[in-house]
Amino acid sequence: MDRRSFIRRAGTVGAGAAASALASPAVAQEYPKITWKMTSSFPKSLDTIYGGAEDIAAHVSDATNGNFVIQTYEAGEIVPGVQAADAVSAGAVDAAHTCSYYFWQKDPTYAIGTALPFGLNARLTNAWFYQGNGNKLMNEFYATQGILGLPAGNTGAQMGGWFRKEINTLDDLKGLKMRIAGLAGKVIEKIGVAPQQDIPVNGVYDALNKGTVDAAEWVGPYDDLKLGLQKIAKYYYYPGWWEGGAVVHAFFNLEKWNALPKSYQAILGDACAFANTNMLAKYDVKNPQALKDIVQQGVTLRPFSQEIMEACFQAASALYADLSKSNDYFKRIYEDQVAYKKDAYLWMQLSEYTFDTFMMIQQRAGKL
Amino acid sequence: MDRRSFIRRAGTVGAGAAASALASPAVAQEYPKITWKMTSSFPKSLDTIYGGAEDIAAHVSDATNGNFVIQTYEAGEIVPGVQAADAVSAGAVDAAHTCSYYFWQKDPTYAIGTALPFGLNARLTNAWFYQGNGNKLMNEFYATQGILGLPAGNTGAQMGGWFRKEINTLDDLKGLKMRIAGLAGKVIEKIGVAPQQDIPVNGVYDALNKGTVDAAEWVGPYDDLKLGLQKIAKYYYYPGWWEGGAVVHAFFNLEKWNALPKSYQAILGDACAFANTNMLAKYDVKNPQALKDIVQQGVTLRPFSQEIMEACFQAASALYADLSKSNDYFKRIYEDQVAYKKDAYLWMQLSEYTFDTFMMIQQRAGKL
Repeated sequence: MDRRSFIRRAGTVGAGAAASALASPAVAQEYPKITWKMTSSFPKSLDTIYGGAEDIAAHVSDATNGNFVIQTYEAGEIVPGVQAADAVSAGAVDAAHTCSYYFWQKDPTYAIGTALPFGLNARLTNAWFYQGNGNKLMNEFYATQGILGLPAGNTGAQMGGWFRKEINTLDDLKGLKMRIAGLAGKVIEKIGVAPQQDIPVNGVYDALNKGTVDAAEWVGPYDDLKLGLQKIAKYYYYPGWWEGGAVVHAFFNLEKWNALPKSYQAILGDACAFANTNMLAKYDVKNPQALKDIVQQGVTLRPFSQEIMEACFQAASALYADLSKSNDYFKRIYEDQVAYKKDAYLWMQLSEYTFDTFMMIQQRAGKL
Repeated sequence: MDRRSFIRRAGTVGAGAAASALASPAVAQEYPKITWKMTSSFPKSLDTIYGGAEDIAAHVSDATNGNFVIQTYEAGEIVPGVQAADAVSAGAVDAAHTCSYYFWQKDPTYAIGTALPFGLNARLTNAWFYQGNGNKLMNEFYATQGILGLPAGNTGAQMGGWFRKEINTLDDLKGLKMRIAGLAGKVIEKIGVAPQQDIPVNGVYDALNKGTVDAAEWVGPYDDLKLGLQKIAKYYYYPGWWEGGAVVHAFFNLEKWNALPKSYQAILGDACAFANTNMLAKYDVKNPQALKDIVQQGVTLRPFSQEIMEACFQAASALYADLSKSNDYFKRIYEDQVAYKKDAYLWMQLSEYTFDTFMMIQQRAGKL
């Protein structure tokens, strides 16, 4: 389904009288003055991920000659980062810019919105959301929470995080305490790691420095460098198999979304689409230099061993089977995504993979 | 530079009196009734690539309550596909949806807008356009042509095309006539292939069937299947090294763009950003099934040999060195893209590549 029909359909979910009343042809009514609050789950200091909310606000303002204003707030300013979904559901704020998987403990279906461990990469995530069933299915679930959600940022495949000692085998991981977000916590629990999920971003450095945790993941080179993690852990692992293409969502209070004029829904939808692409572009331009800086500071880059990757993959598959037994939304959406994933990774093996592989070989040979 | 500041800056290029006059606060003036014509270089039958123009038109209409109408026309309906840039430059149409590289013979700088052989993949193309210098530099060039251009579609890495016989060595390629688009024609000429560039999409099947050409490339499985190429050539090669992430551009007549209200520029900019992401999503959802259909019809998939890839890479590098000697725009924009490419493919080797590789191995093992 394309985005437009998605938005049109979403607009009919309990739209009721408010939207109809606004369907009058009078221009002033079509472009009413509206001011919304959008709370971010991120600090302003992380210009990449916080920037998504700013992009949305700026584009909506530009498109409406300043009539539709979205005020953005950093985490904690009006709502704590981890309460963003509740605040939107309750209508305490109109909107949030957040990662859906922060709320997986309310319902694991939330986790699918951002990324499932061993899920889709960023490009295939977009395909599933925009042209597969992703947006449609996730919004059937979000509607049960009083929320409408649109992808509004992506980090790409994240790094696997910072470790104070080298990790080669499953035994090396056993008993480690690791700061990790989302459903991945349940996965690493199965292989003997103790996940720490209550540490907000501005507490990650201290937790790792003081030894409250032995390892921590955040996003990737550019953001991690800002947190200073390279100063206190010398092994930087990849890939972040739990976030192959993590989505940052714009959440809107469903009733307020439905009450918007159709033109504002269209404008907001496209502003989110822009933010979605632009955030990934920002990461892809800023991460390379940050990676070089990190390596120059003496950090060692290491891939997770095949043993670790395979054990985590099996643990993730077992977890999804468990969750599917008790949660119908999770089961239905997970199965839809897996069906697409099988086809998508078949297709990506041909031109994309061989093109990229050839280019990377030239890059390493210094021939680009 | 982000898209918004890009659009703002683009809006100041020779904006003149028209835009200023429209800056009045009266709502009706801010949302004037405008009807534009957009000519596509593609036939309506290719819903993927023609669909980009339809996405733009639909989103702009929705965002303006139908006040800003963009009428889309397929190739040949009002302007032949290969004359789209000239028609926009001259103001014969307001806009086009086309591949910039179709016009490389006017100036090879046009080729960079779509994709250079051995250039960037789709994701890195977005990064370079939105957050690198891509949009800024290309629009300095497009402005000399009376055009403003925005990415408004991407095909991803294309396939390498259809061959009637197996191609293993450079000798196998010598003397072949191949239908191929863009600057790639100059590259394959250097290794002894005769490029045929005057064959429009609806002539590809006949040319290959009658033996006017020995090989032909178009896009990828979904589009190629529609053309029926699998019926007349049994070898389907990959990757399309000349189009690692081919952009389809929206071209706007620069004066008409500058005369738009700022809100319409913002709306049109975001509609193009949506179309850009949505087209790639459509390909990534439709190509896998089409690929399976093609294989079921008895087609053999083959990667180009390392010998062929390396010879083409060297030929492309030599061509860029030549073009840079005589064309300042080409030189400056090419060098900027290469600088980014070196960094980008360094970064993509870590999490992205190892994540995708692991997932593809699971896909092949039937474990997804």
